[in-house]
Amino acid sequence: MNERPLILITNDDGYQAPGLHHLTQLMKTLGDVVVISSEQTMSAMSHAITIKVPLVFRCLTDEVGFKEFVTNGTPADCVKLGLHKIVNRKPSLVVSGINHGSNSSINIIYSGTLAGALEAAMGGIPAIGFSIRDYSLQADFSYTDEHILHWSSFLLENNKPTLALNINFPKVNDGAYKGHKICRQAKAYWKEDFEERLDPRSGKPYYWLKGDFLLQDEGHDTDEWALNNYFVSVVPIQYDFTDFKTLELLSSNI
Amino acid sequence: MNERPLILITNDDGYQAPGLHHLTQLMKTLGDVVVISSEQTMSAMSHAITIKVPLVFRCLTDEVGFKEFVTNGTPADCVKLGLHKIVNRKPSLVVSGINHGSNSSINIIYSGTLAGALEAAMGGIPAIGFSIRDYSLQADFSYTDEHILHWSSFLLENNKPTLALNINFPKVNDGAYKGHKICRQAKAYWKEDFEERLDPRSGKPYYWLKGDFLLQDEGHDTDEWALNNYFVSVVPIQYDFTDFKTLELLSSNI
Repeated sequence: MNERPLILITNDDGYQAPGLHHLTQLMKTLGDVVVISSEQTMSAMSHAITIKVPLVFRCLTDEVGFKEFVTNGTPADCVKLGLHKIVNRKPSLVVSGINHGSNSSINIIYSGTLAGALEAAMGGIPAIGFSIRDYSLQADFSYTDEHILHWSSFLLENNKPTLALNINFPKVNDGAYKGHKICRQAKAYWKEDFEERLDPRSGKPYYWLKGDFLLQDEGHDTDEWALNNYFVSVVPIQYDFTDFKTLELLSSNI
Repeated sequence: MNERPLILITNDDGYQAPGLHHLTQLMKTLGDVVVISSEQTMSAMSHAITIKVPLVFRCLTDEVGFKEFVTNGTPADCVKLGLHKIVNRKPSLVVSGINHGSNSSINIIYSGTLAGALEAAMGGIPAIGFSIRDYSLQADFSYTDEHILHWSSFLLENNKPTLALNINFPKVNDGAYKGHKICRQAKAYWKEDFEERLDPRSGKPYYWLKGDFLLQDEGHDTDEWALNNYFVSVVPIQYDFTDFKTLELLSSNI
């Protein structure tokens, strides 16, 4: 039997997000599709998993070659549920997104979208997180298609379980992207500001997180440079936090 | 004025955790201390930040050289609040923990404790996450002191803003640790199992996340090996997710 590849899709903007639907339509042209996403938005949930309350899921669509599930979990939970509970064969690819808002540079560490991709990669499945530098729910995805199809096909054909990508699209108002750049994560930091407001009942202050993104990297080989210059940024990613340079220094000094 | 160094402390087990109190007592011997932790436990919250609801905090203790705050935020939020709202001079060190349960190997990616340390490191402050391989609230911390004081002093004296460590203590029932090992993050994966139960009212299933930890690494230079052999594991950590090997391969192929 010549089986179509199985592609699992998740996101962190919730199951109703236009970016998820756009990605789903594209993936249907490449294989059988299972979508597992969250009831609520899970932006900035990073790689959180749900351990204080149980997980539940329900099936929205059950067609030949296309199934959709909604859970109360985070993107990492969605992928765990998908791989170990819902699907009965190993997916050939896991894609996450398209996120409304970019996940370039240090934003990867806060991102639920990328956690979904990394959780798959940790399980030995090629994975891509897609994000667009446009928070609008009406974001124009029309230029993303060829890049999404190119990189998804590339991962499906190469079948390298360690290959995971963080792909970000710049915002373009007209015309297409200038192409893609294979690049590294730019060094950056969110210098936080907190907007203070007063609770109208108690008069006590509360705070909304409201930071400024400080790019600390002048390299032309970074995702931020690529996006600022209207290229699609493609960063190969991994999840080993070891700082090998410091490891060597500490080992030789002590 | 010969100012004592300022040390900021957080954790992910909540403000009442014995591990936090033990760490606080030790840090008081090294400098002025500000503790900012969460009202509730924040285990497995990873690097999540709070954006859907506002943050609030209240002061529990306000003494000369020692202040304690409790927030509704995650460990990453606690450090952001601490650095950008609560303290009025830059801390010389941020420590997180002592976590009840180890954060070695791949567990770092799920860990709120390590997110607290990494958030500080991202802001250019030396940081350490401490965890013990013992989930009990009655865990015996007595052997941790010399190692905690050694590494905290080391970071305070070296004042290297890029230095961040993930330090895990094995569980020992008697006798001390065998020493420490500077090591790398072991390759491992949680193969998830889901315990299915039925909601007594609706009869519908719900699931508790319940995985098996699969060590995929036979190296003797890893944190898992160190802990399994009763050494304290010391892993220098960083937060660049770029997979540079793959970056090179992709750049040369395309």
